[in-house]
Amino acid sequence: MIFNRLVVLGVGLMGGSLALALKKAGVVGTVVGWSRRQSTLDSALNKGVIDLAEPDLETALRGADCVVVATPTILAESLLVKVLEFVPSSVAVTDVASVKGNIVNALSEHFGKVPSNAILGHPIAGSEQSGVAAAKDDLFQNHRVILISDADTDSRALEQVRSMWVAAEAEVFEMSAPEHDRVLALSSHLPHILAYALVTQLSSGTDSADAFKFAAGGFRDFTRIASSDPRMWREILLANKEQVSASLDGFEQQLKKIRSLLHNNDGESIEVIFTEAKGARDEFAEQLALRSKKKW
Amino acid sequence: MIFNRLVVLGVGLMGGSLALALKKAGVVGTVVGWSRRQSTLDSALNKGVIDLAEPDLETALRGADCVVVATPTILAESLLVKVLEFVPSSVAVTDVASVKGNIVNALSEHFGKVPSNAILGHPIAGSEQSGVAAAKDDLFQNHRVILISDADTDSRALEQVRSMWVAAEAEVFEMSAPEHDRVLALSSHLPHILAYALVTQLSSGTDSADAFKFAAGGFRDFTRIASSDPRMWREILLANKEQVSASLDGFEQQLKKIRSLLHNNDGESIEVIFTEAKGARDEFAEQLALRSKKKW
Repeated sequence: MIFNRLVVLGVGLMGGSLALALKKAGVVGTVVGWSRRQSTLDSALNKGVIDLAEPDLETALRGADCVVVATPTILAESLLVKVLEFVPSSVAVTDVASVKGNIVNALSEHFGKVPSNAILGHPIAGSEQSGVAAAKDDLFQNHRVILISDADTDSRALEQVRSMWVAAEAEVFEMSAPEHDRVLALSSHLPHILAYALVTQLSSGTDSADAFKFAAGGFRDFTRIASSDPRMWREILLANKEQVSASLDGFEQQLKKIRSLLHNNDGESIEVIFTEAKGARDEFAEQLALRSKKKW
Repeated sequence: MIFNRLVVLGVGLMGGSLALALKKAGVVGTVVGWSRRQSTLDSALNKGVIDLAEPDLETALRGADCVVVATPTILAESLLVKVLEFVPSSVAVTDVASVKGNIVNALSEHFGKVPSNAILGHPIAGSEQSGVAAAKDDLFQNHRVILISDADTDSRALEQVRSMWVAAEAEVFEMSAPEHDRVLALSSHLPHILAYALVTQLSSGTDSADAFKFAAGGFRDFTRIASSDPRMWREILLANKEQVSASLDGFEQQLKKIRSLLHNNDGESIEVIFTEAKGARDEFAEQLALRSKKKW
């Protein structure tokens, strides 16, 4: 048993899936769910995701051994502040938001520094679906979770949160918030912008109908992430504005280079760039395939 | 029987798959294969893709009812010129190259205009694999083929080539070469540049190792096309340089707009753009799914 009383704030895809995974692993006693919507709590109870539904935040938090803030990014900052003000500093408090720097800033501003029991986290898993109906006990299996730690981090709380994710069959890594936000800007936030922008360009031109009509499987794969939740991505980009802008700068430099080689008919240099990219991408895909087969 | 003697120049993935599909449909008599490499001809014979292997081009072309130029893009121009000089104007000559404007220009330059029996074509199908070993009889099934026609096009040759693709279970469309190149620049060539450029950016930064390490399924899908053949894509981009540059211009405008909204914290406008893009992409994916199930 890792936690006797686990409190999940926001019982959607992420919070719900975590609760299911921990119940399956048998490492939690009572899972208490809190949500702004009664209908979410009802669904979560019916699906067996939570044991207790508690619409009042303070009542939910009382007696907690661990609190997971799993609301949308935009609510996570203020909710974390409220929770960290309320619970004793011995209680591990964590979250699942996709950007960490904004939360670190909010906590530092409010508390003077990030409280030592705040173990910010980001499970790199998700789905185009959302909501508790889509929750499943293996969402995090063989996925990676990044935990944010610094010199002040309470090591007991950190170990508890780490054990929790390991019980959900995820692989846990630690890094600083700025590093996290830089890495995710590149590997996740930038690609989403590019996919949305490409679809926008195709939709807006005079050849729009034909461009979609004659697009094929490659285009479908390339633009899959443009089917992600627009509200969520608006929030992620704004929360990670600085790093996203930096990654956009870098990307525009790459485009500029390719365009200039094209302009100069320098096919050889274009092929060198493409060959290196193909090598890196093939290796990445191989690693990802190995990882997804791995048993922890 | 559509053609008694079909001559396929370049027996790789495309030429080989077309030959297999037409044999399966029972619409060709003898399939003659020509290639610069004897090993390719040997493989094609062994696999039953062709009935006759002919390393000499003129011998191969003699008595042809139809000639399909299925070599890489870079060879297609000069080979089409040779073939169209050699065969009688009653023989349908077609190709499978991904760009059409450069070929139209080369033929116009050489012959004064595009010969009326030249029915340029582009089957929008492919694979990350290449070579005759990857050829399969259903590669074009439920895929789209664009044929280029103008007022001078020989209607009998056009109908023959159309029937050939219909026999391979493809759906045939007609458009002009400039329209084709504009549409493909947007829906295919530009996405390939973006995928290669993104992987290049990830590979080259200081966070490179981590960026790949924490990239997930969305990134894999987004960058799948960066695993395409670098040589082939170098050739396609150079062949369609003008339209590709125009589509890059348009894309950079889209990026500039999103960047500026981000700079101004205009989340609402970002969400509007993303929501429209998601709508267009979801509709495209639905249409593509319907199409792939459709029986012709």
